[in-house]
Amino acid sequence: MPKASAEFLGSFFLLNAIVGSGIMATQLTDDVALQLLINALSTVLMLSVLISAFQNASGAHFNPIVTIYEFIKKDIELKQFIFFLLAQFSGAIVGTISANLMFNSSLSQISSNDRFNSGSFMGEILATFGLIMVISLKASKASILVPAWIGSAYFFTSSTSFANPAVTIGRIFTDSFAGIAVSSALPFIAAQLIGLSLLLLIGNRFIKDRSNERN
Amino acid sequence: MPKASAEFLGSFFLLNAIVGSGIMATQLTDDVALQLLINALSTVLMLSVLISAFQNASGAHFNPIVTIYEFIKKDIELKQFIFFLLAQFSGAIVGTISANLMFNSSLSQISSNDRFNSGSFMGEILATFGLIMVISLKASKASILVPAWIGSAYFFTSSTSFANPAVTIGRIFTDSFAGIAVSSALPFIAAQLIGLSLLLLIGNRFIKDRSNERN
Amino acid sequence: MPKASAEFLGSFFLLNAIVGSGIMATQLTDDVALQLLINALSTVLMLSVLISAFQNASGAHFNPIVTIYEFIKKDIELKQFIFFLLAQFSGAIVGTISANLMFNSSLSQISSNDRFNSGSFMGEILATFGLIMVISLKASKASILVPAWIGSAYFFTSSTSFANPAVTIGRIFTDSFAGIAVSSALPFIAAQLIGLSLLLLIGNRFIKDRSNERN
Amino acid sequence: MPKASAEFLGSFFLLNAIVGSGIMATQLTDDVALQLLINALSTVLMLSVLISAFQNASGAHFNPIVTIYEFIKKDIELKQFIFFLLAQFSGAIVGTISANLMFNSSLSQISSNDRFNSGSFMGEILATFGLIMVISLKASKASILVPAWIGSAYFFTSSTSFANPAVTIGRIFTDSFAGIAVSSALPFIAAQLIGLSLLLLIGNRFIKDRSNERN
Repeated sequence: MPKASAEFLGSFFLLNAIVGSGIMATQLTDDVALQLLINALSTVLMLSVLISAFQNASGAHFNPIVTIYEFIKKDIELKQFIFFLLAQFSGAIVGTISANLMFNSSLSQISSNDRFNSGSFMGEILATFGLIMVISLKASKASILVPAWIGSAYFFTSSTSFANPAVTIGRIFTDSFAGIAVSSALPFIAAQLIGLSLLLLIGNRFIKDRSNERN
Repeated sequence: MPKASAEFLGSFFLLNAIVGSGIMATQLTDDVALQLLINALSTVLMLSVLISAFQNASGAHFNPIVTIYEFIKKDIELKQFIFFLLAQFSGAIVGTISANLMFNSSLSQISSNDRFNSGSFMGEILATFGLIMVISLKASKASILVPAWIGSAYFFTSSTSFANPAVTIGRIFTDSFAGIAVSSALPFIAAQLIGLSLLLLIGNRFIKDRSNERN
Repeated sequence: MPKASAEFLGSFFLLNAIVGSGIMATQLTDDVALQLLINALSTVLMLSVLISAFQNASGAHFNPIVTIYEFIKKDIELKQFIFFLLAQFSGAIVGTISANLMFNSSLSQISSNDRFNSGSFMGEILATFGLIMVISLKASKASILVPAWIGSAYFFTSSTSFANPAVTIGRIFTDSFAGIAVSSALPFIAAQLIGLSLLLLIGNRFIKDRSNERN
Repeated sequence: MPKASAEFLGSFFLLNAIVGSGIMATQLTDDVALQLLINALSTVLMLSVLISAFQNASGAHFNPIVTIYEFIKKDIELKQFIFFLLAQFSGAIVGTISANLMFNSSLSQISSNDRFNSGSFMGEILATFGLIMVISLKASKASILVPAWIGSAYFFTSSTSFANPAVTIGRIFTDSFAGIAVSSALPFIAAQLIGLSLLLLIGNRFIKDRSNERN
């Protein structure tokens, strides 16, 4: 199962970066803008490294939304689809716990960080819509464009752009800067699925048409 | 009309980034340098993503100055010229309203942010002159050089570098960090047109000559 | 011995960047997040320049862990192995002293900066594991991926990611922001060797398998 | 004389970025680290844009040290050498005055910013040595490596890395963040010439040898 192990390792390191840099950031400064800047910087660089390193191994999804999208496009089959989701969710949870440990924090935590409101719900829809739009238009440049999109969306969406159900579930298990309460995690995942659905609806009419012409 | 829809989507997301990250920035910190840094970072990354993603679809202008420049060079015809301008201005306005909504702000706003003075007027001339200079010299690297130019100009021009009439009009419709009052928007657009005219005058003598020799 | 001289020069400049920017950062601001940001930025850019510039000359290791890894893979022989380690350690120490001098600080210093605890020990293991994982998967993109990995790890590991025994020894010789006490340096190096060992154990099963398939 | 006009335009915009972003930075924040970060960011992005845009036109020196180096290597002849120096120094001075004007500051200023001491003298030697080392090893990647080197050196050299006599002379003419007093400018230029001389002495033995083998 080496493809799924690439998805596990990638999700593991991604959550180490998101959660670890979030804890580091709050230890370093009281300025929330600087905290988010450090959190975004570490995440974006990690995403770029992981997509470059694992693209040939598994396609470097690290994101159930991307895996669902590839499954709908019939680029992967059911067995791999299931193994990928299992690898992504377990990698994300283990990566979060690893980050807690690295900062001498308790292993078992649940976030109390309430992030849900109508604005952040809309933010997750836009962030996920754009993420899959970028992948559908320029998959070959994913190691640059996906981190760039997430880096931009960190600051322009009111949700700071999770856009990834495995990341969302993983971040439940840390009561720190990057954490998210269960009650917010579920609507965030719903919004991410809506974002994907919208892209499939609108994208098939406007975006796909153009990409066909490209070569 | 899929080319114009690419211009609409690009302008929509660009303004989401500019206006959304501006609101986010003022919610995170009181340090104006950090606010502008976050605003510039989100904008520059978004520009890079959008130009990469839509370059093959529409040329990825997202800017009436670029569209006018291409029209003068006879690279696009009148019908497309008009559709592009409509797509850019409407995308910019809808993108601004979307950003307002994402941050739970009221849908209909007008900026009171007065940005006009002789220094910022000169800044817009320089920013627009340089933007078209870069595009005329290295259009093939636009997805890197245009964001890099705007990222630099955010900080070295006293106007923070709008260099784009659609962006300028869009930013009227938010009373937040990135907003611009109507009374400043009009002279800013005049300065942008002067910057383009200067480039066409000077550039044709000095810059174009060299680029012809290149290959 | 020009290959070893490339390793010496690279290690020399790398430590100038790490230690020099650390001193500069504490002279500029009291915000520790900004200090670390400046320290990381200068280091990451320097790494990228040095790996690009010296890759053809020596392979651009600048890191005994990488040299040990190449020696185990039998890509370099014993004599070169020894010269590389000597060049890296001496370059790192001279580079640190150079940075002290550049900031008008005393030439001979020993750090009192205690950095060791179970969290930072784990951080060094993860940082080194990931560094060699990235190199083993995408050596051809090392000039981008190694700096990106270190840039991410600066903020998500609790140790700020040394991941390099020569850098660790060099940083003993400055009593400034980037310094490390001898009592912390030794366990850090132990953790780095554990990280490499883990990668060799796990990587051979999961990561190597995939890279073979790539081309 | 289009080659010299490229050198003039490049030096003009480079100094607009250095001086303009310096003035902007001090207007935005009191944190000197953030001021230098904004100043470096704007400069580094501008350098990257200008080298990409003008590389085919003039070689994109914008720096008398580079022009002297190319003249010594006999890559350019005496007439061009003189025109390049004139273009660089005049472009730098006009660019500085332009930045003063853009921020509604008085046109004619002289800096009182004393930057000279033994540490910054050593910093300029190292910064210039490294700059020419990078160019001599990887001229084809100059549009990435030169800005990366300057970006790193901004923070690890105690002089903030001028490494350019035209930039040094230009920055005399602004009494703002980026300015330099005449009494410091002259020893800075001396240090830059020493850095170049050292590179020519040492580099010819160690660095050049390796680059010959490359292919």
